Amino acid sequence: MSTNGRVDHEIDATDETLHSDWNRAREPVRTIESGDAVRFECRDAANGQLGPDSTVADLAELDVDQVHTLTGPIAIDGAEPGDVLEVEILELEHRGWGYTLVLPGELGMGLLPEEFPEPALHVWDLEDGVARFVNGIEVPLHPFPGTLGVAPAEPGVHDTNPPRPVGGNLDIKHLTAGSTMYLPIAVEDGLFSIGDCHAAQGDGEVCISGVEAPMSVTCRFELRSEMDLERPQFETDGPFTSSGRDEPMYGTTGVGDDLREAAKDAIRGMIDHCHAERGLTREEAYILCSAAVDLKLNQVVNAPNWTVSAYLPEQIFPDADA
Amino acid sequence: MSTNGRVDHEIDATDETLHSDWNRAREPVRTIESGDAVRFECRDAANGQLGPDSTVADLAELDVDQVHTLTGPIAIDGAEPGDVLEVEILELEHRGWGYTLVLPGELGMGLLPEEFPEPALHVWDLEDGVARFVNGIEVPLHPFPGTLGVAPAEPGVHDTNPPRPVGGNLDIKHLTAGSTMYLPIAVEDGLFSIGDCHAAQGDGEVCISGVEAPMSVTCRFELRSEMDLERPQFETDGPFTSSGRDEPMYGTTGVGDDLREAAKDAIRGMIDHCHAERGLTREEAYILCSAAVDLKLNQVVNAPNWTVSAYLPEQIFPDADA
Repeated sequence: MSTNGRVDHEIDATDETLHSDWNRAREPVRTIESGDAVRFECRDAANGQLGPDSTVADLAELDVDQVHTLTGPIAIDGAEPGDVLEVEILELEHRGWGYTLVLPGELGMGLLPEEFPEPALHVWDLEDGVARFVNGIEVPLHPFPGTLGVAPAEPGVHDTNPPRPVGGNLDIKHLTAGSTMYLPIAVEDGLFSIGDCHAAQGDGEVCISGVEAPMSVTCRFELRSEMDLERPQFETDGPFTSSGRDEPMYGTTGVGDDLREAAKDAIRGMIDHCHAERGLTREEAYILCSAAVDLKLNQVVNAPNWTVSAYLPEQIFPDADA
Repeated sequence: MSTNGRVDHEIDATDETLHSDWNRAREPVRTIESGDAVRFECRDAANGQLGPDSTVADLAELDVDQVHTLTGPIAIDGAEPGDVLEVEILELEHRGWGYTLVLPGELGMGLLPEEFPEPALHVWDLEDGVARFVNGIEVPLHPFPGTLGVAPAEPGVHDTNPPRPVGGNLDIKHLTAGSTMYLPIAVEDGLFSIGDCHAAQGDGEVCISGVEAPMSVTCRFELRSEMDLERPQFETDGPFTSSGRDEPMYGTTGVGDDLREAAKDAIRGMIDHCHAERGLTREEAYILCSAAVDLKLNQVVNAPNWTVSAYLPEQIFPDADA
């Protein structure tokens, strides 16, 4: 909710407001003033094709062209290319459930598609303020919009999968309620859309999905004509660990001359660790890495080999000391 | 200090113990038993060529072949290839000062050598438990060894700059006192060396150096023959933020199909931010990024564009609310 409780606009999830691509020619569904707060009703990234009772068998029928279903766009009155759109994220409300999926390896999605050829799905219960996994594992929630952005300058239809300098599918897990995003506006009216909300996610989102969940998202918008940005910037208070303070982490390291290959090795090490030491299947470990394990760039300068490590918060396990 | 205060071996920094390469043929300076604690005297990475009164003019004379000066190697009695060396990091003691340098861009070192052609140096006062920068900025300390490893299997002399699966110049900033490292042993006796200590560092170490400082480091070693590792793993309690708990961060984002290029864009954004909003010169901003700004891999799966962000802890500035 906005700090004064005022919501100026409600944008529902309807045939008129839902879309699965970026396009500067799309008609805005509402025009707002700088300073307005807007509540968006957002479907999950897959447009409601999965529900709390879904099983892995349902993934065979999944139409991936509907990913990511976004809500919008809204026009910001007076917005011009070169302006900056300030987006204060005020509140996110989930619906008590979410899911993390692994798509068939032949689709080439995720960090390790060759090693995970079969689809997999975990449906999370979010009712008690944590995301419940197998074996008593509980992942703390930190809801955020995985995709938020303004329309690209280039005409035509643009896939929602890659993020761009105007934003989009950035999957920055720290854009929680209380955070503020700054986006460079590329077209008249800005044309802001949002969706693909995650109840939790690890830095990396390695299996291709976070804890995907339908949510409502309330944001306040300010037009910042005096700012000048080439790429997104943001302010956040985190959380930066699962508990919001220093806590025990298990780390696995990748080393090599390609950062994405090093990230793969770090995640391979973490999957081995979760399988051998925590009794998870390799599919469960891959899903847990995507939902709760953080990839950090330890160093990017010791040529020719860089260091990337994956960090597992041990407090999510039921036998944790804390 | 070890938990029971026992130090079984002291390895001084002498002509006999200092070396600037990895080589399986190097004679060990001491043989220890599994379970022993060892205190290593470590020079700074540049072998004492710089001191607390050094200025940028001294960088012209710097012999980079002496980087990184390591102390060791020690033999672990009974260690065989395929074993794992557990290294518990017990204590680090700095000498009250450290430095961060930018080398001439023509050497091609650091993340942005083209944009920083001139050498630069900041000497940090560490006496009050923080690293003092310009403009009243104070970076909290979290001392750790930048380089620790065992000898590679391949014969001959190996540069210390790149880390390898046997460890080395990993620059994992979370290997603070209380952490435990696991290294895959590649040669008989293991042949462990350590050095290149940093009093603080950001994830990324973008300008090529952390807060470089001479230190003594005390570690306890255990031979873990039952473990099986291809790459380093570790346990750590952080710190994961400058204060050890959630705190305000300013983020700048890079987006693109190459992770290192995206990291460059994230750091370029952060340098612009520190220059425009915090009054630092661009050289000061680059140094501060290397000492205190963390690079995170937000997502590595939304093909063809990945997201990398740089995180600046705002509490290091003297006007912080904290």
